[in-house]
Amino acid sequence: MTTASICTIGDEILIGQIVDTNSSNISRELGALGIKTTRMVSISDSRDDIIDSLTEELENNDIVICTGGLGPTKDDITKDALAELSGSFSYVRHDGQLEVVKRILSSRGIDILDINMAQADVPDKCEVIVNQRGTAPIMVFRFPEKQFRHEAVLYSLPGVPYEAIAALPAIMDDIKAHFPIASIIHRTLMTYGIAESALAKLIEPWEDALPESMHLAYLPNQITGVRLRLSVYGADENSDAALDEQLAKLKEIVGQYIYSECDDTLQGAIGRMLRGSGKTICAAESCTGGEIAHLITTVPGASEYFLGSVTSYAPEIKTKLLGVSPETISNEGIVSSVVACGMAEGVRKLMGSTYSVATTGWADSYGDEHEPAGTVWVAASGPNGTRSARFQYRNDRLRNIERFAASALNLLREVILDDMK
Amino acid sequence: MTTASICTIGDEILIGQIVDTNSSNISRELGALGIKTTRMVSISDSRDDIIDSLTEELENNDIVICTGGLGPTKDDITKDALAELSGSFSYVRHDGQLEVVKRILSSRGIDILDINMAQADVPDKCEVIVNQRGTAPIMVFRFPEKQFRHEAVLYSLPGVPYEAIAALPAIMDDIKAHFPIASIIHRTLMTYGIAESALAKLIEPWEDALPESMHLAYLPNQITGVRLRLSVYGADENSDAALDEQLAKLKEIVGQYIYSECDDTLQGAIGRMLRGSGKTICAAESCTGGEIAHLITTVPGASEYFLGSVTSYAPEIKTKLLGVSPETISNEGIVSSVVACGMAEGVRKLMGSTYSVATTGWADSYGDEHEPAGTVWVAASGPNGTRSARFQYRNDRLRNIERFAASALNLLREVILDDMK
Repeated sequence: MTTASICTIGDEILIGQIVDTNSSNISRELGALGIKTTRMVSISDSRDDIIDSLTEELENNDIVICTGGLGPTKDDITKDALAELSGSFSYVRHDGQLEVVKRILSSRGIDILDINMAQADVPDKCEVIVNQRGTAPIMVFRFPEKQFRHEAVLYSLPGVPYEAIAALPAIMDDIKAHFPIASIIHRTLMTYGIAESALAKLIEPWEDALPESMHLAYLPNQITGVRLRLSVYGADENSDAALDEQLAKLKEIVGQYIYSECDDTLQGAIGRMLRGSGKTICAAESCTGGEIAHLITTVPGASEYFLGSVTSYAPEIKTKLLGVSPETISNEGIVSSVVACGMAEGVRKLMGSTYSVATTGWADSYGDEHEPAGTVWVAASGPNGTRSARFQYRNDRLRNIERFAASALNLLREVILDDMK
Repeated sequence: MTTASICTIGDEILIGQIVDTNSSNISRELGALGIKTTRMVSISDSRDDIIDSLTEELENNDIVICTGGLGPTKDDITKDALAELSGSFSYVRHDGQLEVVKRILSSRGIDILDINMAQADVPDKCEVIVNQRGTAPIMVFRFPEKQFRHEAVLYSLPGVPYEAIAALPAIMDDIKAHFPIASIIHRTLMTYGIAESALAKLIEPWEDALPESMHLAYLPNQITGVRLRLSVYGADENSDAALDEQLAKLKEIVGQYIYSECDDTLQGAIGRMLRGSGKTICAAESCTGGEIAHLITTVPGASEYFLGSVTSYAPEIKTKLLGVSPETISNEGIVSSVVACGMAEGVRKLMGSTYSVATTGWADSYGDEHEPAGTVWVAASGPNGTRSARFQYRNDRLRNIERFAASALNLLREVILDDMK
C-alpha cells in the first residue's frame, strides 16, 4: 500500500499561533486515492530539523507532502534545506512562477525587489508546478531508490491554506500518474438527526453485505451530522451501477436522515431547493443570536431567496416586531413551542416570505422553571402551517448556538421538502 | 532550555476527519512558561507506532504531552502502549476516576459495564490527575535518567478538546513543580486596525529599547487584529512596575489601536464597556448576514445590553423595517455611507437602543457602478450622532463577512468609547 507523511514547517504552528488545517485537507485527498497517511509532523524553521525530519519521513513513506516555510524572509529556509536534501547544485529562476510574482505584486502596487524575484528561484533538482495564487512555487522532488532505499517523492506546498488547497488537484494528479493507484469512485451522503452509533447499528446488515470492493467511511461532525462516504477501489465500468444499487438500498433504511447526496451543508441543501423556485425564507432568532442568518448567507447567491431576519434577543422585541404577546411569553415561558411558532409566524408576516424559521432556547446557564439550560424550541412556518420541535443539549453556550442553529435549519429543510412532495 | 513535544494519537486526525486544535492550545500554554515546543506529531492507533514515536520524542525532549487514544473501545490502545513503555507490571483501578465514570454514565442514564469501569484502570507506574470532564484519567509517567539518557516526563491527556483544555492548568502546575521554570509575567494588548508590519515599524524604537529581560511577541490574526504579548522572564518584585512603565510608553505610541489590555475580542471589549451602564445596542446587517449579532451574542451575559438585530438582506426590508427610502438606495447606491447611516439610525429607532451598528457591502463578486466587490460601508449611531467608514478588502465571501463584521464592531466600540470620555 502506498503511504504518505504530511509535514508542516514553521514556528507559527509550533508556538500555537495558528492551527494547522492543511494537514487534514491533504490527508482527506490522499485517503480518497486510497493512500494511507501514516504520520503528520510539525517542524520548526530550522535547517537541521527540516532535513532530519524529512529524511526520516522519506525513509518510511513513498510520499511526503510538506507545507510552509517558503516566505521571502530570511527565517524561511525550507527551500535551502530541500536543495541540500535533493543534492541540487544551484538555483534556477522559473519563468512561469516569476510571471505570477510580478502579477501579484503589481496588482498590490508593490515595487518588485530582488527578494521578491528570488521567490521564483528553485533548486535545479526539482520540477515546478506554478502556484497561481501566491508567489512561492510548488516544488516536486523525485528521489532515486538509492537515497531512501525505495523510490520516494516530496511535494513542497505553500503554507497559506488558500494557496495550499488550490495546489492539491495538481498534486493528486501527479500522484495518480506516478503511483499504482487503483481507480476509485466515491459517493457522499450527508445525514442529520442521527448519532453515528445509532446510524451504524441501523445500517449494519446492509454494511456487512456490501461487496468486497466497497468500503463505507463514517465522517461524523457533532454539529452538521454524519457524512457517509461509500467508495469502490479498483472501479470498472460496472461500478457506478453497483454503487447506485447499494445507495438505493441504503436510502430505504435511513433515507429520512439524508439531506444531500453531495458534500453539502444544511444551508446549502436549502439553497439548492429554493434557487429558481421563486420561494423565499426569513428567520427570527433568539438564543442563536444571528447564527442562522449567518449560515444561510454563507451560501453564495443566498440573496435570491433569503429576505432577512430579526434577532429578538430582548423579550420586548419579540412582542414589538414579531407580535408575540407578553401574556404568551409569561404563561408559556419564553422557551416554548408557542413562542417559537409565534416568532416564526410573526417574522414570516413581517417579511412577506414563503417560509420562515425561528429559535428560542437557553444556550447556557440560565434556564427557567419551564425549561432547563441547553433546551431549544425551533419552529418552521410555511403555506401549509407551522411545525415546532424541542431539542435538549448539554450546557455549553458556543456549541449550543451552533447545534440549535443546525436543528432549526434541518426543520426548515423538512418543511420545505414536504411541500415539494 | 526545557523542551517539549506534543503528540496526538488517533486515526481520526490522520485521515483528516478532525482538525487537531489541542496541540496549539498546549503549545501556547507551554510557551507562556518559557518552554519551547520542538515538534508536534500525529500518530495512528497502532501500538508499535505509538511506542516508537513516543520513544523518539522522549529521547529528544524533557516533556512529552500526548492527547487521544484513550476511549473505551478496542481500537484505543494508547494505555497498553504506555504501560509497556513505562515497564508497568499491572493495572490498578483509580477510585477518584471511577467515581467520575459512574457519575457521568449515570447522568446520561447509561448502565455501567466492565468496559466502562476499566476506563478508571491505569498502569501501576503512573500518577493520576482525575479528569473531571470525562471518563479517561489523565496519566503522568516520570522516566528515570537511564531510560532516555535524561529525566523525562510524559503526560497523557484525553483527546476531546473540552476535556484536554480543562486538564491543562494541572499539567502546567506539575511542570512548574518539576522543571526549572523561570518566573514569568505576561501582559497582553489587543490591537485592531493596523497591520503587523506597520505596527512593528511604529514601535521599533520602543521595542529596541526594551530591557534585556523583556520579550515582545506579535500574534497576528487577519480578522481580529494583532495581539501583542510583553513578557518578563525571571520576574522579580520590580517586574510589574517595569512592565507598567513600558506599556505606558507603548500606549503613547499606538494607544489609538489598542482595544483591550486583556486577551479579549472586539465584542468582549464592547460588553465590558456596556455591562452595568444601563446602555444598550442593536444591529442592522446586510452583507454580514447575521455575523455581527452572532459575535455579540457569543459573549455570556450579552442579553443585558443587546436588544436584537435586523438582517435586511433584501432591499425592501431596508425600506420597510429600517426606513431607508428606495430613492436613497437608487441614488446613492445600496453600498454607500448614506444607506449605512440610515440603517443604523433606523434600527436604533426601531429597537429603542442607546447605540446601533450597521453594515452594507459587497461580500463577493457582485458590486455595482458605485462600489466594487469587497467594499463595505459600516455605520454606528448613538446619542451624539452617526458615524460611518468605508473599508475595501479582497474578493473572498467568507473572509469578507468576518472582516466586515470586525470593522463594524470596531467602529461601534470607538463611538461608545468617545461618549465615555
